[in-house]
Amino acid sequence: MESEHFGDRLAERVKQRGNPVLVGLDPRWRQLPSGVRGNDESPSGQASAYEAFCQGVIDVVAPLVAAVKPQMAFFEQLGPPGLTALESVVRYARSHGLLVILDGKRNDIGSTATAYAGGLLGSESGFGGDALTVSPYLGDDSLTPFVERASATGSGVFVLVKTSNPGGGMFQDLIADGQPVYRHVADYVEQLASQSLGEANYGCVGAVVGATYPEQLAELRAAMPHSWLLVPGFGAQGGAAADVAHAFDEEGLGAIINSSRAIIFAHARPEFAHYGETKWQDAVDAATNEMAEQLRTAIH
Amino acid sequence: MESEHFGDRLAERVKQRGNPVLVGLDPRWRQLPSGVRGNDESPSGQASAYEAFCQGVIDVVAPLVAAVKPQMAFFEQLGPPGLTALESVVRYARSHGLLVILDGKRNDIGSTATAYAGGLLGSESGFGGDALTVSPYLGDDSLTPFVERASATGSGVFVLVKTSNPGGGMFQDLIADGQPVYRHVADYVEQLASQSLGEANYGCVGAVVGATYPEQLAELRAAMPHSWLLVPGFGAQGGAAADVAHAFDEEGLGAIINSSRAIIFAHARPEFAHYGETKWQDAVDAATNEMAEQLRTAIH
Repeated sequence: MESEHFGDRLAERVKQRGNPVLVGLDPRWRQLPSGVRGNDESPSGQASAYEAFCQGVIDVVAPLVAAVKPQMAFFEQLGPPGLTALESVVRYARSHGLLVILDGKRNDIGSTATAYAGGLLGSESGFGGDALTVSPYLGDDSLTPFVERASATGSGVFVLVKTSNPGGGMFQDLIADGQPVYRHVADYVEQLASQSLGEANYGCVGAVVGATYPEQLAELRAAMPHSWLLVPGFGAQGGAAADVAHAFDEEGLGAIINSSRAIIFAHARPEFAHYGETKWQDAVDAATNEMAEQLRTAIH
Repeated sequence: MESEHFGDRLAERVKQRGNPVLVGLDPRWRQLPSGVRGNDESPSGQASAYEAFCQGVIDVVAPLVAAVKPQMAFFEQLGPPGLTALESVVRYARSHGLLVILDGKRNDIGSTATAYAGGLLGSESGFGGDALTVSPYLGDDSLTPFVERASATGSGVFVLVKTSNPGGGMFQDLIADGQPVYRHVADYVEQLASQSLGEANYGCVGAVVGATYPEQLAELRAAMPHSWLLVPGFGAQGGAAADVAHAFDEEGLGAIINSSRAIIFAHARPEFAHYGETKWQDAVDAATNEMAEQLRTAIH
């Protein structure tokens, strides 16, 4: 029987699958395999193609990985039809045994944060996510409504701490009271995590820490022993398996490593080009297994 | 003929209407007038009620104010039907001569930020907003895609600088290099604004600065002479007209002052209770005019 605590559910899935791969669902119209894309470029047409494409990815990766991470921006770009497709993709992924981490980087204050949490977190919510990424700029009273909802519904929250993009340091690396802003955020996230521990000794609150800053990743792993780390920036953004090795605890748990384009559009990568566009799902399968193997080697 | 630059469009509307009131559209199910709410509590039923309610507010305030600010969280809370209602509300407001500032506090990196901007900014976008609120935590390369889209489409961006909530200071007030983090953000926003000036001498990039911190509001007005300020926290959150007086330039421009609950649910305020629930639109009218008059007095 599955635990109700998000940290435990994630630990169980990662152990079952034997790897920490998180597949990012970032559909982009021009990069869809032409057989999936079709000719209808209206918002509804694109939304239908996104839905079919993501379901095709899920069919392949559901037996292989613990979780998927739909990027809400690509669905929101299409307006209401895109959000309808997103809701369908979330349902499809969950029904295939995957945890769904909605990448929305949402944030707001008080009762407005409560509304976001009610829309995005938990099976009874509008979109039904198992977890959500949130931004910390608005401070503690903007994060607690998400944490409370997560605790109550067995879902999770990943707070942006140190992001993978080149400009991430502009405000995150400012030094205040002897340590960078991201470390202040990390300390608060760890506090929230340690107040919401499950049986696996992780909280329902975790942190987003980019793979492109390996030293900070090691620092933050040590500073946040009860926080799951969601690590973007692997693959297309330049992070390698060796860079993320320090993200894990001694049991090889505590971090999930995201890859989006390099997996879902693997058919466009030179090394998988032999599959061709029609066998794009075989390329997804190969790329997922390749990444899982790279991470298994790096962790042990 | 109307200018294509967002800063100019906002200046023209504020001058035409003679006040800087921004009406926040924050529909909440339990607070809707019972005649609007109805009995269908399904997501679709609630979404229909939100749409009808917001249209009813727009009918009243369109001749009175320059802009409305739908809070995306309350629509997103309902799942896909809520977003369909939001898109309809945006269209309705624009067709009634209002500028629409989508309060989404979105943020992401690179091409993902571009996707959000494509979904939310400009009449050709998925939701068709005239402007969008964004969060700065991810740094400069997360903001430029929004700014580029805004420049290209005559729309605007409001970056969170100093927020109105009690916890806003947790990270925003950390002192780095001799000044608070929010001031670092403000300096960058002003740089973006001064690079995108319109005829009114304001950029297409502005800042969110809470009414609940009057001293910082005056400081930031001086530090950001080319940035429109979006000022939340008036009314229900405690800010008064005297507190926001320093947000304006010498012509009484440069700031818009948001009020949400105190206007849209004015029928629930003791001083407007005599309208009763059935005349809730008359209460909206009275509350809007009252706030406009308070601000006119405070500015001059």
